[in-house]
Amino acid sequence: MKSNYADDSLTLHTDLYQINMAESYWADHIHNRKAVFELYFRKLPFGNGYAVFAGLERVLEYLKNFRFSESDIAYLSQELGYKEDFIEYLKNLKFTGSVYSVKEGELVFANEPLMRIEAPLVEAQLIETALLNIVNYQTLIATKASRIKQIIKDEGAAEFGSRRAQEMDAAVWGARAAIIGGFDSTSNVRAGKLFNIPVSGTHAHAMVQAYKDEYEAFHSYAKRHKDCVFLVDTYNTLKSGVPNAIRVAKELGDQINFIGIRLDSGDISFLSKEARKMLDEAGFHDAKIIVSNDLDEYTILNLKAQGARVDSWGIGTKLITAYDQPALGAVYKLVSIENEAGEMEDTIKITANAEKVSTPGLKKVYRIINRENGKAEGDYIAMADENPQEEERIKMFHPVHTFISKFVTNFDANELHVQVVDKGQLVYESPSVQEMKQYAFSNLELLWDEYKRSLNPEEYPVDLSQKCWDNKMKNIQEVRNMVHNLENG
Amino acid sequence: MKSNYADDSLTLHTDLYQINMAESYWADHIHNRKAVFELYFRKLPFGNGYAVFAGLERVLEYLKNFRFSESDIAYLSQELGYKEDFIEYLKNLKFTGSVYSVKEGELVFANEPLMRIEAPLVEAQLIETALLNIVNYQTLIATKASRIKQIIKDEGAAEFGSRRAQEMDAAVWGARAAIIGGFDSTSNVRAGKLFNIPVSGTHAHAMVQAYKDEYEAFHSYAKRHKDCVFLVDTYNTLKSGVPNAIRVAKELGDQINFIGIRLDSGDISFLSKEARKMLDEAGFHDAKIIVSNDLDEYTILNLKAQGARVDSWGIGTKLITAYDQPALGAVYKLVSIENEAGEMEDTIKITANAEKVSTPGLKKVYRIINRENGKAEGDYIAMADENPQEEERIKMFHPVHTFISKFVTNFDANELHVQVVDKGQLVYESPSVQEMKQYAFSNLELLWDEYKRSLNPEEYPVDLSQKCWDNKMKNIQEVRNMVHNLENG
Repeated sequence: MKSNYADDSLTLHTDLYQINMAESYWADHIHNRKAVFELYFRKLPFGNGYAVFAGLERVLEYLKNFRFSESDIAYLSQELGYKEDFIEYLKNLKFTGSVYSVKEGELVFANEPLMRIEAPLVEAQLIETALLNIVNYQTLIATKASRIKQIIKDEGAAEFGSRRAQEMDAAVWGARAAIIGGFDSTSNVRAGKLFNIPVSGTHAHAMVQAYKDEYEAFHSYAKRHKDCVFLVDTYNTLKSGVPNAIRVAKELGDQINFIGIRLDSGDISFLSKEARKMLDEAGFHDAKIIVSNDLDEYTILNLKAQGARVDSWGIGTKLITAYDQPALGAVYKLVSIENEAGEMEDTIKITANAEKVSTPGLKKVYRIINRENGKAEGDYIAMADENPQEEERIKMFHPVHTFISKFVTNFDANELHVQVVDKGQLVYESPSVQEMKQYAFSNLELLWDEYKRSLNPEEYPVDLSQKCWDNKMKNIQEVRNMVHNLENG
Repeated sequence: MKSNYADDSLTLHTDLYQINMAESYWADHIHNRKAVFELYFRKLPFGNGYAVFAGLERVLEYLKNFRFSESDIAYLSQELGYKEDFIEYLKNLKFTGSVYSVKEGELVFANEPLMRIEAPLVEAQLIETALLNIVNYQTLIATKASRIKQIIKDEGAAEFGSRRAQEMDAAVWGARAAIIGGFDSTSNVRAGKLFNIPVSGTHAHAMVQAYKDEYEAFHSYAKRHKDCVFLVDTYNTLKSGVPNAIRVAKELGDQINFIGIRLDSGDISFLSKEARKMLDEAGFHDAKIIVSNDLDEYTILNLKAQGARVDSWGIGTKLITAYDQPALGAVYKLVSIENEAGEMEDTIKITANAEKVSTPGLKKVYRIINRENGKAEGDYIAMADENPQEEERIKMFHPVHTFISKFVTNFDANELHVQVVDKGQLVYESPSVQEMKQYAFSNLELLWDEYKRSLNPEEYPVDLSQKCWDNKMKNIQEVRNMVHNLENG
């Protein structure tokens, strides 16, 4: 970051109002009351039938290092004018709460808690912005990648978007999320190093221009690099690029591993078919055709429908920015808080928009797996003191259209959350990114195909237990009564 | 970043192919040939009539620190398998080139060089990805902010998007870009510290929930914070929120500075008008109404058209992600390179798409100001050895529809680029962000209103000099001849 703040810390990466609220809590001595916040989104992105959770590893890193730096403290005190007593308090603040989270690579759905934070009110409040910032983006990109991979199927999928990413963090964390979502590799070398993920890439148009002569450029590249993919569209794909690639591959024979060619402009459908013919005629049946140029799941589906001969897809802008929906709207809501008497009390936020009413109370989320076919029946949100696994059958009903319901028997109720932080201590070791990717793939096996369709998928059930539903209705009624009493003096 | 790489460096923040090309250049001993690259975009974002350049300060920071770290070198050698001789070369690589750039806050247009890099080929190549990553995002957000500010006019404009930003860098650098584009403040405290920009914010719904009682929550907030904006939509805006805000403001009188209320949900048009009436009736004519909730220039324009009574606008997701077009497509093209004989030779990239053909040669960009009215006639791209200021009159003609042309006399030709790096040495000190913002405002004064309209603005002329045009045609012809010769054996 800026060199004038060598001690730049992410602890200050929060909205100003969080610090203002922290100050009020602290001044009123309620800052250490136990609070429960849930992080969830209300709507799946891209019209997709599921999302792929990502971001936990960075969240844990952030929580571990949560402490205002010297310059943070100086800024809050001298520039923003917070009073000395509160500043003194902030100096020693650490995160001492507990965190429960779904794993990276887990399939998640709207209106179910992805993370649950149980912490002193002030700490839970201060971390909100950073947690949302991290999880919103990384989950968005893992989901977009998975969605694109559903269309690509077994062909190669490479992330190429760094130059169009929304600043540097997005480039590297987006690359990592793309792998979790099912991609094979990224072009970003730093992401490769940081996250131990495969990197790929060959050369650009500039190299052909630098050597001026395309044949010479390919030849030079091949001299130094055993594995060769030649970019063939600097001057003219079919008249110059492909012929020069074939010429170099023939001349150098076994001296190189002629992997194939890359197309980066023009009509991919036409050019890939023509190039395939030329490669085949030259005897290079195994040479692959790699394409890029503003691709996403829609263009790929259309290119495939036209019989484009593509072996591997490089996806840039549309993936790394989640171009058609560049934000996931996850929110972070207080669902329960300790009262003066030391008891936990549920709390709710009401709005004019029914979908935005929060669901109060400490809850757990279960994936209900049908033992007969091994497929998921849906997710089931129950109060913490319920244990659906002990029940003979559970009633699952739609949280909006409550008359839509089903009874499920002979099921496994698998809790989705694992504890990752216990009273400030990290108690979870992240698996490798490749393991997260495998986890996502295996979870997709649990879903019926109707939830995996990229266009108009069926809605996967995320239902509340009866007890959870009753508790929500009770809380809504309490707020209604309060507003009614206010109105009538 | 990851704690296991304390020496994480941005030098590795590049696409793998850049390093592969660097290796070829180095192996062929052409790595130190002088190269000229230009960074430009081909299309203005959001259908806007101009863009606002941002990102230079971070680019300069990046170039100053350009050096592979120990772990970078270890990764390239051990994990990616680059050979020892090339690795040895990389160990001592620094950026030794020169950079020319428009200033942050400068208005810029399609197809004109925003930055020009004159550097040894290998260095210019390796920095491409990072430069594009930085400039694309920051320019995009400064432009979006300026576009929104054109609609907001003199009312308040606050950036509130951190939680929806595409990871952490985007949150802080996007906040900075929003200020350059004309915004007043950001909610991100870290951005406030790093860039010395104003921060703003009060409290969230969670605080009202934490105190359970809304009146008590407002009262508590007011006890500790002199300046009060109360968020009034936790339970019911008109029946609970606004009355409670008024009650606290009346009770505390001069003890607080009752700045106003904030609406974050529901129908802003209706609620703001009703709230205004209630505040006025209570005697709080100066109390401001601040609104937020998925706003952008389109919703604001519509709310204004309906007579919404809003004093200040908080813009989140739609600004920080540039929601309706989340990527700027700036590219980085080689336009000239030293040949074997040590002479500079122009170079071009041809594609099937006419708009994507690059413009060869070392060029300068001038803003042509009409001395009579002080307004910009357009931008004029000339070869480096031309001096339009010395000419009596210049002919400006459309670079696609060349028959559209005009002669301009009595003009000032102001060169847009300043040298910011001279042979590896930083020779430019960035002004403050507030100065950049003022610079953008004053530059907007140079533009006729027709270029500033948010819907269907006129196209601002960016024209090539005759010499520049002739040079481009000559280069195209040379490539055509080359392809023709290939085709005919």
